Amino acid sequence: MFEFTIVHKSTEHRGRIGKLKTPHGELTTPVFMPVGTQATVKTMSPEQLQALGASIILSNTYHLYLRPGHEVVREAGGLHAFMNWPGAILTDSGGFQVFSLAKLNQVSDEGVLFRSHLDGSAHFFTPEKVMEIEMALGADIAMAFDVCLPYPSTYEEAALAQARTTQWAARCRERHDRADQALFGIVQGVTFRDLREKSARELVAMDFPGYAVGGLSVGEPKALMYEVLDYTVPLLPENKPRYLMGVGSPDALWEGVARGIDMFDCVLPTRIARNGTAMTSRGRVVVRNAKYARDFSPLDPECTCPTCRQYTRAYLRHLIHAGEILGLMLITYHNLYFLTRMMEKIRESIQQGTFYEAKEAFFTAYYGKADGEGF
Amino acid sequence: MFEFTIVHKSTEHRGRIGKLKTPHGELTTPVFMPVGTQATVKTMSPEQLQALGASIILSNTYHLYLRPGHEVVREAGGLHAFMNWPGAILTDSGGFQVFSLAKLNQVSDEGVLFRSHLDGSAHFFTPEKVMEIEMALGADIAMAFDVCLPYPSTYEEAALAQARTTQWAARCRERHDRADQALFGIVQGVTFRDLREKSARELVAMDFPGYAVGGLSVGEPKALMYEVLDYTVPLLPENKPRYLMGVGSPDALWEGVARGIDMFDCVLPTRIARNGTAMTSRGRVVVRNAKYARDFSPLDPECTCPTCRQYTRAYLRHLIHAGEILGLMLITYHNLYFLTRMMEKIRESIQQGTFYEAKEAFFTAYYGKADGEGF
Ligand SMILES: [Zn+2]
Ligand SMILES: [Zn+2]
Repeated sequence: MFEFTIVHKSTEHRGRIGKLKTPHGELTTPVFMPVGTQATVKTMSPEQLQALGASIILSNTYHLYLRPGHEVVREAGGLHAFMNWPGAILTDSGGFQVFSLAKLNQVSDEGVLFRSHLDGSAHFFTPEKVMEIEMALGADIAMAFDVCLPYPSTYEEAALAQARTTQWAARCRERHDRADQALFGIVQGVTFRDLREKSARELVAMDFPGYAVGGLSVGEPKALMYEVLDYTVPLLPENKPRYLMGVGSPDALWEGVARGIDMFDCVLPTRIARNGTAMTSRGRVVVRNAKYARDFSPLDPECTCPTCRQYTRAYLRHLIHAGEILGLMLITYHNLYFLTRMMEKIRESIQQGTFYEAKEAFFTAYYGKADGEGF
Repeated sequence: MFEFTIVHKSTEHRGRIGKLKTPHGELTTPVFMPVGTQATVKTMSPEQLQALGASIILSNTYHLYLRPGHEVVREAGGLHAFMNWPGAILTDSGGFQVFSLAKLNQVSDEGVLFRSHLDGSAHFFTPEKVMEIEMALGADIAMAFDVCLPYPSTYEEAALAQARTTQWAARCRERHDRADQALFGIVQGVTFRDLREKSARELVAMDFPGYAVGGLSVGEPKALMYEVLDYTVPLLPENKPRYLMGVGSPDALWEGVARGIDMFDCVLPTRIARNGTAMTSRGRVVVRNAKYARDFSPLDPECTCPTCRQYTRAYLRHLIHAGEILGLMLITYHNLYFLTRMMEKIRESIQQGTFYEAKEAFFTAYYGKADGEGF
């Protein structure tokens, strides 16, 4: 029901191409997962997601628990039925949200007492409670409940959080009993090498069917994030999928893949669309800018998505300025299509042993320089 | 290029089935036109509009003149190319908007000085200026620039507005010279029978290819609106299309058709969707209400639209509560599909001579009573 197979290993770096079999289809890794926080990828219908090539999406336990409630989703037949998405789903554990979005009241070994960002109501998340919620949601992949720290954090804070994350991972494993759902462990430890190594060792000993590297892309320099991946990923089992949480800028996807990451998620492509910003083969285009008012060329001349085939920058700019939803929809579609096609290119280049050439060509076109960084 | 043919006349009332040939396709009347104020029908892609059966949409001269500007639309190749809509388009004249939405500075025989509701900038609309704008937009049907009054208005106000509307219609006719665009005249006169009759007579003498009844559905009781139609429509030429502006509630569509109206437009189906309200075969459903939280049945069990085939009320309610755009999109699609199917039923019933039976059945199901009124 859940099976990960490596079909090709890069001869140039730690990257690999894999097949991940799930109860809702087989997907090819490395893969980018669009984010559907509230049981919908913002402005996209499931048909559109399928058409652009999405095979797996992410949804958020914290948000769905608060609204509409995991019991409602369970009664609907689970998240796939509730939102009419036939592909695979991964749910995060809410760890990131209770530590960042909610108002924290108290964190103990037992769990986290927090207040809803919606109505201030009090809730207590334990590893067991989160497993109940995630099993009710019924995603193909569930994440263990973890302690997420901001960057920077002190060594003492990081050590406590790492130790708790391990204990909570064990309790999640103990409570989790849904055979059609894979439970992934999350490596924590901020940017402290010994803590990351300890976390990886302890979680690997529990033999999860997959591992995430969490607590990154939270404000630390990208070079530091890559360094953490450089020493963390080799400690994870070769034959299990590896997921880098919350990362989705084009440069970080190339860099992450080269360091052995198989799965990514990020709100970036959907979020920047709302501001009229597109990722294109020639870099970012902020289509709301005045210079596009009479630009009747496509958003991205090299893109074959419906937005680029059918609409002009001038029209997209008009829609964004007029506050029209179709503008968000068309740019979101393009951005997700762009990242999905980029992941295809990355996989092809691994297959053909031309990763670094392909990466340099992409970076030069996108960032204007081969070592470009940004989004 | 533009041709109206009556293919069937009701044996029961003034209603008829027609074929309206336009440069962008032939459409069957009576027809409901979805409103795309800012060169987009809110939340709908052109593909979706085609899929639900829309053959003609309306767009707004006042809004497009202010943003993005009619010159931009002209440079884009006209409104069809700009918004990627292959079907027919009708543009209103902006008369309604300058008299209701904009800040009026001065109305004279010459035209209307107004301030933009967007930035307060001053603009002067004359019949000639409006024709230039509408010809730049390039819709299949353009409306003459008219004087719109609120309800109630005094007889003196109404008489002046009616006289100006006739003068302006003549000036529009004089200035309009786009062969691939039909110019319709607009009958005004508030609810004064002699003024309506005078307006109709004067405009008919100018031999427009189509006529609208304007200035209705602006606050007057529906019975009064029907009365105006009862004495106005018979004065309009039998062989020209007749358009009732701004009317789209189900009851008024049935009543309007029986009085000989061929075309309707209204923001109602798109606007109420934003509030989570659907038109269904069993009447209005306010899906945001708490009682639908665990209702896993379709929005309208008798509807075959993608929304009703694929999603539950519980999911739609969740989307609306969570402020998710997909909710607006799915309900808007359903509402437009519902009205489009209803117009089909109306045409069928005219064809079969069963209009009043069909109307009673519809009203009983929708309003709970055969003489129901509402939306
Ligand atoms: Zn594109
Ligand atoms: Zn429906």
